Amino acid sequence: MATLHVPLDRGKPLALAKQIQGHLERLIREGHLGDGVKLPATRELAKSLGVNRATVALAYEEMVAAGHARAHVGQGTFVVGAAAAPKASEPRARTPINWTGLLSRSARIAAAEEDRWRRMSPGDTDRVAVSFAGGMPDSELFPTEAFRQVLNRVLREEGDVLLQYYPARGYPPLRQYLARYLLRFGVEATPDEILIVNGSQQGFDLVARTFLDPGDFAAVEQPTYPRALQVFRGAGAQLLAVPWAREGPRPDVLERLLERHRPKLFYCQPNCHNPTGLSLTPETGRRLLAVAARGEVPVVEDGFDPSLYYGRRPATPLKALDGDGVVIYIGTFSKILFPGLRLGWVVAAAPVIERLLGAKQLADLHTSALLQAAVQRFCERRLLDRHASRVAAEYGHRRTILVEALRRRMPDSVTWTEAEGGFSLLVTLPAGLDAAALLPAAIARGVAFTPGRPFFVDDGGERTLRLSFSAVPARRIDDGVRRLADTIKAAMKRPRASTGDRAAVPVV
Amino acid sequence: MATLHVPLDRGKPLALAKQIQGHLERLIREGHLGDGVKLPATRELAKSLGVNRATVALAYEEMVAAGHARAHVGQGTFVVGAAAAPKASEPRARTPINWTGLLSRSARIAAAEEDRWRRMSPGDTDRVAVSFAGGMPDSELFPTEAFRQVLNRVLREEGDVLLQYYPARGYPPLRQYLARYLLRFGVEATPDEILIVNGSQQGFDLVARTFLDPGDFAAVEQPTYPRALQVFRGAGAQLLAVPWAREGPRPDVLERLLERHRPKLFYCQPNCHNPTGLSLTPETGRRLLAVAARGEVPVVEDGFDPSLYYGRRPATPLKALDGDGVVIYIGTFSKILFPGLRLGWVVAAAPVIERLLGAKQLADLHTSALLQAAVQRFCERRLLDRHASRVAAEYGHRRTILVEALRRRMPDSVTWTEAEGGFSLLVTLPAGLDAAALLPAAIARGVAFTPGRPFFVDDGGERTLRLSFSAVPARRIDDGVRRLADTIKAAMKRPRASTGDRAAVPVV
Repeated sequence: MATLHVPLDRGKPLALAKQIQGHLERLIREGHLGDGVKLPATRELAKSLGVNRATVALAYEEMVAAGHARAHVGQGTFVVGAAAAPKASEPRARTPINWTGLLSRSARIAAAEEDRWRRMSPGDTDRVAVSFAGGMPDSELFPTEAFRQVLNRVLREEGDVLLQYYPARGYPPLRQYLARYLLRFGVEATPDEILIVNGSQQGFDLVARTFLDPGDFAAVEQPTYPRALQVFRGAGAQLLAVPWAREGPRPDVLERLLERHRPKLFYCQPNCHNPTGLSLTPETGRRLLAVAARGEVPVVEDGFDPSLYYGRRPATPLKALDGDGVVIYIGTFSKILFPGLRLGWVVAAAPVIERLLGAKQLADLHTSALLQAAVQRFCERRLLDRHASRVAAEYGHRRTILVEALRRRMPDSVTWTEAEGGFSLLVTLPAGLDAAALLPAAIARGVAFTPGRPFFVDDGGERTLRLSFSAVPARRIDDGVRRLADTIKAAMKRPRASTGDRAAVPVV
Repeated sequence: MATLHVPLDRGKPLALAKQIQGHLERLIREGHLGDGVKLPATRELAKSLGVNRATVALAYEEMVAAGHARAHVGQGTFVVGAAAAPKASEPRARTPINWTGLLSRSARIAAAEEDRWRRMSPGDTDRVAVSFAGGMPDSELFPTEAFRQVLNRVLREEGDVLLQYYPARGYPPLRQYLARYLLRFGVEATPDEILIVNGSQQGFDLVARTFLDPGDFAAVEQPTYPRALQVFRGAGAQLLAVPWAREGPRPDVLERLLERHRPKLFYCQPNCHNPTGLSLTPETGRRLLAVAARGEVPVVEDGFDPSLYYGRRPATPLKALDGDGVVIYIGTFSKILFPGLRLGWVVAAAPVIERLLGAKQLADLHTSALLQAAVQRFCERRLLDRHASRVAAEYGHRRTILVEALRRRMPDSVTWTEAEGGFSLLVTLPAGLDAAALLPAAIARGVAFTPGRPFFVDDGGERTLRLSFSAVPARRIDDGVRRLADTIKAAMKRPRASTGDRAAVPVV
């Protein structure tokens, strides 16, 4: 390390070298200086503390003598600590503050939601033979080297501008590219109807801040993406479920909810739906939009990239059917390219974009322009198109293998959604089984999944579980399904702890 | 472009080629396809639409004949549009939604705040000879090439992992580095007391979400960073001003406010303060902390990097004096390295970090691990230290030139803060002058600044203006001060529109 601060009391009888030694030894003892950390060079530490270099050298010698440091000639002095890993923090000071008592309503809701989600989480699945738990693209397929090259080039060409503060709306060439890209799917937007955000998660959050007050209602498809539910709940909204049928979220239910509760928005993922992998039909889409227009309620479309659609007809975003301008479309590069970039966008009418832009500025000023520019170059060079066809073929292949394995291996009483896009499908277990309760046995047999309950608003879905196929190598899928089928069959043989009739879950 | 969606009605008597032509011409007319855009290759468009290639070729030929496209043999067909720039959006659909009526309370507050700030903004200062308006580091000094090299290396070494979803807490080696880095300034924290965020702005926002409910009080130093005020106001808080004296925010005022209003937090920038450039004394810091501990109120420290301190004694973060654990410290790489990375961190007691982590996950899942890893490598190789000494010397030099020019050129009735760190200082004009009203005349004389009012909670500060010296080349500073002094002198000669006694501003 370069240097560090040592509080010195020059009026104290204790020699300065002793004070330095004492301070450093305390930092080592409390884990701030871990085993192997190089202490500052004596010259630098002496300079920054305003003491004689010999004073620091003496302190170091005493530490070496006491076994708290070791010196390597020509290399410096290194900490000898208890453990290499930094110590977990201990409350080192008694704080007068009751942090829990100070939490906002929204923070308390978020804490409760997290607890709920954590109880359902498959946890660390690294040691499981086959994990269907992560709803993410396969990093083995990442075009990392091609991206490295464009990032390099963009840093050379305009690095200084891209590393400075940047306007919150986003990198104009990326917004222009997106306006053209979306035409493929029938979505018509000008660049000023597009706002760049940190992945679709920030899109949900900005929409929630902009439209939801505590106590408002929000309608949401069911099942759906749990972190979207958490955002709306965190904003204080009361959620109303619109169940999915085979053709999409049910327009008749939405209509009834609009009449009764006047929600502030309706959230859904019309295509490549998480967790079911289904896509709505254009007919259902038009009915939903007509209902929303009559009810004067915005539709928040969580738009999975339609390129990752494996069905026969192409997937149609609701935004492509949105003649009335009621849809706020949220897109992302996380599924089709790299989740780790945290890069997404919102398409909406210009007055909506202006308000979301205001929220974005308060949230974090802007999204990294460097990453925006690199992705824009990547796309303009058609590297995204090439990557998208490659992964769509691979994910479609994995989906087919998964569905075939389910058909072959599952008991008759197990059903699932025939995913046509996206990363996952939803399995429904026979009556009497609870997916969360099944998980430990599944993990013991070497297979992991995500229990379905967090995807449900109304605390239903106990019998459902999500299988993500996107990140599982094709050759492992059948083995994973075998392990899961064995787990389910074993559970069906055991006398059941009744979970009651509420295990009957709406069609998904 | 690769392809685009064209809605085709095969039952229509209108030939498919005519339908394609009509759709494309509408997209051109409405600005979605700008001048020079390359239309999809006939083969690709035909394939994606499921029509004969000759049909697409016919549509393109008709467009060329009508002057809406031009063909270049061997290159393709290109749009001939009205203008190269994409058209500003027009309301293309009558929306049934009254967006303004749907806005949340927080969005309405943010909109009002923005209007207020926009009226005070110097606007686009590109054509001004000398601009003291932007509070940012000088991009001419950026170590862009060195950063490019580490980013390259990190992508080669662990790109696939860094481009995947990543835990929200942040890249562990960066948190470990920060724990060691902060020891230089006397701040002791373990890596699990550190959360990585998108710049300090996200830090403010996460703190506001976690601790503020609508109607709560929040105490804030005055003057202060306007976007922090906006965040707290956006969260619905009522702000209470704690004025700066020469030695820091006044502990006696804070104490009185705590007794009367029990605010949920106290926000301040104790070092390298924006806009004044002042730093508090350790004595005042200790008094503030004692008051906060007695009042059981968290102190939110907006920590400008203490490396950018040009005074004699080193700057001391409040967090370094925080024996009671009441300080939430927010740091950033924006001032000392690149603002465009949007990379910052929060240091706080572990239970606070857990709640901020929950808010972070809902806000945007996590910060780009790629950028975190690149910065960590940059720091570990001591490139940040090298850069920091270089820019601290340069900014300190600019600050000295600015203060000397002010002494030499300003009328006696003009005063300013003697900045000891940071990027700016605050000038107070003689009674009767209004900085915002002066700005157009200043710009006409070729100098820009930021009017001080947005930095004040109580709508005071009319007589103040901020001069940022960090991004102004040393050789331009004296000329800028001359232009500003001339503007002020001219205004002092004019008969004054009285702004009344409230122009008397607390000492800053």
